[in-house]
Amino acid sequence: MLSLSDLEDARDRVADVARHTPMEYSHTFSDRTGAEVHLKLENFQRTGSFKIRGATNRIATLSEEEKEAGVVTASAGNHAQGVALAATRVGVDSTIVMPKHAPVSKVKATRNYGGNVVLHGVDYNEAQAHAHDIEERENRTYVHAFDDEKVMAGQGTIGLEIADDCPDVDTVVVPIGGGGLIAGISTAMKGTFGDDVRVVGVQAEGASSAAESLEKGERHERESVDTIADGIATRSIGEQTFEVIQERVDEVVTVSDEEIALALTLLLERSKTLVEGAGAVPMAAVLTEAFDYDDGDVIVPALCGGNIDLNRMTTIVMRGLVQMGRYLKIKTVLKDRPGELETIATIVSNHGANVYAVHHDRTARDVAVNAAELEVEMETNDEEHAAEIVATLRDRGYEVEVLV
Amino acid sequence: MLSLSDLEDARDRVADVARHTPMEYSHTFSDRTGAEVHLKLENFQRTGSFKIRGATNRIATLSEEEKEAGVVTASAGNHAQGVALAATRVGVDSTIVMPKHAPVSKVKATRNYGGNVVLHGVDYNEAQAHAHDIEERENRTYVHAFDDEKVMAGQGTIGLEIADDCPDVDTVVVPIGGGGLIAGISTAMKGTFGDDVRVVGVQAEGASSAAESLEKGERHERESVDTIADGIATRSIGEQTFEVIQERVDEVVTVSDEEIALALTLLLERSKTLVEGAGAVPMAAVLTEAFDYDDGDVIVPALCGGNIDLNRMTTIVMRGLVQMGRYLKIKTVLKDRPGELETIATIVSNHGANVYAVHHDRTARDVAVNAAELEVEMETNDEEHAAEIVATLRDRGYEVEVLV
Repeated sequence: MLSLSDLEDARDRVADVARHTPMEYSHTFSDRTGAEVHLKLENFQRTGSFKIRGATNRIATLSEEEKEAGVVTASAGNHAQGVALAATRVGVDSTIVMPKHAPVSKVKATRNYGGNVVLHGVDYNEAQAHAHDIEERENRTYVHAFDDEKVMAGQGTIGLEIADDCPDVDTVVVPIGGGGLIAGISTAMKGTFGDDVRVVGVQAEGASSAAESLEKGERHERESVDTIADGIATRSIGEQTFEVIQERVDEVVTVSDEEIALALTLLLERSKTLVEGAGAVPMAAVLTEAFDYDDGDVIVPALCGGNIDLNRMTTIVMRGLVQMGRYLKIKTVLKDRPGELETIATIVSNHGANVYAVHHDRTARDVAVNAAELEVEMETNDEEHAAEIVATLRDRGYEVEVLV
Repeated sequence: MLSLSDLEDARDRVADVARHTPMEYSHTFSDRTGAEVHLKLENFQRTGSFKIRGATNRIATLSEEEKEAGVVTASAGNHAQGVALAATRVGVDSTIVMPKHAPVSKVKATRNYGGNVVLHGVDYNEAQAHAHDIEERENRTYVHAFDDEKVMAGQGTIGLEIADDCPDVDTVVVPIGGGGLIAGISTAMKGTFGDDVRVVGVQAEGASSAAESLEKGERHERESVDTIADGIATRSIGEQTFEVIQERVDEVVTVSDEEIALALTLLLERSKTLVEGAGAVPMAAVLTEAFDYDDGDVIVPALCGGNIDLNRMTTIVMRGLVQMGRYLKIKTVLKDRPGELETIATIVSNHGANVYAVHHDRTARDVAVNAAELEVEMETNDEEHAAEIVATLRDRGYEVEVLV
């Protein structure tokens, strides 16, 4: 099984390509939770996620012959960019198979890092099958995204950095997709501190294969996954990673998409740092107390990546603001007579809410001919404030539907 | 005039409340510019901006009697939060006058930091006049946002950190609003390195009082300001700050709102860090080569703050994506017959663009009765890609208006 010395061996190799990412104390999240929260900003990693670490260690440990033949992998996400840059940095040829519908931004980034991108298949499974064909045909080494000891050891170098930069850590909180990251980090923590440090794994509710596998005592593959945290939307954890998790992870918990959206939004607004859904997952677990901790406990959430499409981010932030009661969208019906719009605007303004947008539609199908449908989007202070505005409108005789 | 020893005196006082913010090397911006770009992440500062430094030094140097009487200031922005927290941390009472229309989030944050918020006046000038009334009436000390030597010395502690963390710096790039930040930083840089280090000031085109004042050789007040960088939307720099700028700043340049939007978007997408408009200004100057630099020059843009309303951020990011050719919104008119929408969708899809939103309106006033207006928002790769899509649609006989 993966050992601390594997991680130490990986450290120098990884340092050639990846960076030692910052650890930042968070006043905001410490005040909010009572714990001492230190953020491991792995979203600042090169290529925007931790995957570069494992890929670098894997490629650095290939034989000269294997390096000459090149590598291949399949990925629509962070692993693609990690393998491409890691290979390019040591002069190894890389072929990355991505599904045809892969976002243009990810394809472009992978090409920019020097990977030969092959677009093939409608989904990840088809892309993966094609990558294995290329593996055989071209005698390339397939770089697995997580179920590989050298990959796990590379990811574990994050744990060595946490141990160095925050030696009084009590709990490390780590997202789980395939399990490579937590296998590495748990090996670092238990190898360095023994049971003085707790390792908590976190999954999205809609992709909780590790939690289910631990419960059953054997690897369990989900039929489908459904979460906004696409970086950890994995149907099954790996064989090797599962062994390490069983041995070294103290607890695995789950969080909902709403909780992830809220955590992502708070990290952006308060900590000024952009994480992807998977990167927000450990903070969501801390904020919702998905695991127990005491006041003053030193907690390190590993914010594992920041690669999120900015449009997608906008949508998630909107969900986060709704969670906080900071965004309210309502629909109502106005008698189509002068002054009605003004009345509504006055009510909203008297409550001190800022209007973002108004949609006024006389042609909506489900209203009477002399009426008009009105949608109003506004900024509110908190849930109570939003509820007051809705109550006042209803008191004044408007039928109000809360849309979000 | 402000001296290096003033800054050194400020250092310990400031360290009690503010944090030493990180300096991060940026592969992305170094690759893009040929320079060696190190980001000074002052957006990670407590309260989200550098203002806490100057306020802390000012309040720490009050006499016991003055501390007893409390402080007052006027601000709708970062200075309000800085003064509130700095005062609360040393047990001094603070009154912060904010204009009535101040964003709820800023009012709330200032109250959370322990400030007594008074809402007064329709704009900053009215709020300021009221704050001076309170100053006289209650014998409080007015904490100026920039034109005060103790405030400038506090802001200058950023410069001491830059000198420590990046001793081989060639050029520091600093936003200018009232001039307090650059007065402090230029004093740190010239005091430590003499003319071996260049200090470049950057203003928004619509708020370029310092650039205009330097040109005229005397302080010049603008009649109005207009920029998305609200943190530096100042009609005039200070008297004391102007003196320091004349003496120690090598060059002052300006950037446009479009350039600021692009820089903010790139910092978010590539560096995973959220800055406000004013915080993006120095990066905009680097990216547009608003000042000359050579390959390999070590450049430190001071990203001075990160307090931006998330909705406002969304709007600015959209403008940034438009700049990059990554977002295209078009309007066209369809003959209202079966298959037209599908034709357009096919063209867009064949070009590999992702559709974000479609608005289809049969009741638009300016189209014929048997026609319908169609708006399509989509993600594109770059400007060339966007232009190709528009060209193909026009070739196929559609009149296309590019909306953004």
